[in-house]
Amino acid sequence: MVLQVIRFFNKVFTRRVSSHTRSIIFRQLFDDVSSTYTYLLGCPITRECLLIDPVVEHSKRDFKLTKDLRLQLKFAINTHMHADHITGTGYLKALSGCKSVISKASGAQADILIDESDIIQFGDHILKVFSTPGHTNGCCTYYLPEQEIAFTGDALLIRGCGRTDFQEGNPRTLYRSVHDKIFTLPKNTILYPAHDYHGMMCTSVDEEKRLNPRLTKSEDEFVEIMNNLNLGYPKQIDKALPANKVCGVFDIPKDEPLDEV
Amino acid sequence: MVLQVIRFFNKVFTRRVSSHTRSIIFRQLFDDVSSTYTYLLGCPITRECLLIDPVVEHSKRDFKLTKDLRLQLKFAINTHMHADHITGTGYLKALSGCKSVISKASGAQADILIDESDIIQFGDHILKVFSTPGHTNGCCTYYLPEQEIAFTGDALLIRGCGRTDFQEGNPRTLYRSVHDKIFTLPKNTILYPAHDYHGMMCTSVDEEKRLNPRLTKSEDEFVEIMNNLNLGYPKQIDKALPANKVCGVFDIPKDEPLDEV
Repeated sequence: MVLQVIRFFNKVFTRRVSSHTRSIIFRQLFDDVSSTYTYLLGCPITRECLLIDPVVEHSKRDFKLTKDLRLQLKFAINTHMHADHITGTGYLKALSGCKSVISKASGAQADILIDESDIIQFGDHILKVFSTPGHTNGCCTYYLPEQEIAFTGDALLIRGCGRTDFQEGNPRTLYRSVHDKIFTLPKNTILYPAHDYHGMMCTSVDEEKRLNPRLTKSEDEFVEIMNNLNLGYPKQIDKALPANKVCGVFDIPKDEPLDEV
Repeated sequence: MVLQVIRFFNKVFTRRVSSHTRSIIFRQLFDDVSSTYTYLLGCPITRECLLIDPVVEHSKRDFKLTKDLRLQLKFAINTHMHADHITGTGYLKALSGCKSVISKASGAQADILIDESDIIQFGDHILKVFSTPGHTNGCCTYYLPEQEIAFTGDALLIRGCGRTDFQEGNPRTLYRSVHDKIFTLPKNTILYPAHDYHGMMCTSVDEEKRLNPRLTKSEDEFVEIMNNLNLGYPKQIDKALPANKVCGVFDIPKDEPLDEV
């Protein structure tokens, strides 16, 4: 009897683990012009999926991938109103009929406006919304609790963080968002940022709490650092912000026929 | 009693699943000059790790990451003798004292020469070696059975494959390697290639069996396609091949002091 239980246990455990490793469909994608990461999350049972931070130039690539993986795009989501590239959410709406999503605090238009503690459901899975302002007022971190992974946008980058010197940037607010929200997630949580410029793709809560050169400092020291970065004016901001303000209702470009996808 | 069993079961299952998601440390890294992916695999228990296909220019970045993650680099491994970049294995040996590894059939020097069916152990984990020639004679695919993921080098790329028009390239051999070895892995196996040029980071056996524009063709059609690609001469080949032939014994560059790491 004991042996039978163990055998049954092992059998179920083995099957569940094997199944668990693919209990979610996950892909990271890259735009090498703005060094932006886009994320695809899909439910292998219902085939519903969502994209986080798509880039307009890659809308067809990203939509094609959803089709290749036999997924149906339910949501195209932004972590915030980006200043360095035009979001693909508007184009993806036209391609797929998905709903666009962004935080209410971003000031941008979209089909669904979200806020702290909201839940985004796709198939059998959920993303929890954490409001993590500081880079912009509307920055959100999306947390996938079952896998202990989080998408931090520009709030927390790998050994870095988003700028606080334009839009509604505020270093003190950003420091509190990272320390009070992101750093309170389980320490093994894998963090996927909106950007990286050094060929790195993810980090973890544990690493950033130990090694982030800015956010391991005191709040006052962090504010001092952020207020003295003296960075150049963002190249794409004048084009990106007006477009991203209407990201959720942006029409498909006239010269980009759907049938090319 | 039944309820107790279910509770116990759930408890154990939840714990094992939670533990399973971090049963291995895994990082994908990128070199944007040669579009090469490097992979870090580590054992969270013993802290031993290995790197697959490191690029010399990123040796310090990659070694620093092993230190940041509190890992000890045991092996620096190549999937094959690359023609498009200089491997970082020699430099990493000097930085870390790790052993260099490449296939015997590659013709390159290294501390450990491997062959079909060999096992590479790091901590509580193993990589199985599959010989997958065709791009070069010494191409290997490394398979991590516990996670059902494989590192295919240049044998199979995302919706593509490595060239067969230089070194010991042979399209018929490559076709057989992919169909007889890689395509016989479980269909949900996630495949990590040595390169991608479109911002994609991985694929799966299922996808490539359905969607690879070359390898879904018949063997004869594949040979015809590969023999008529008319690609340019690889830019780095004259520099990369002589260096990579001695990758495992390559000295640390004199102008790159260790203490900068």
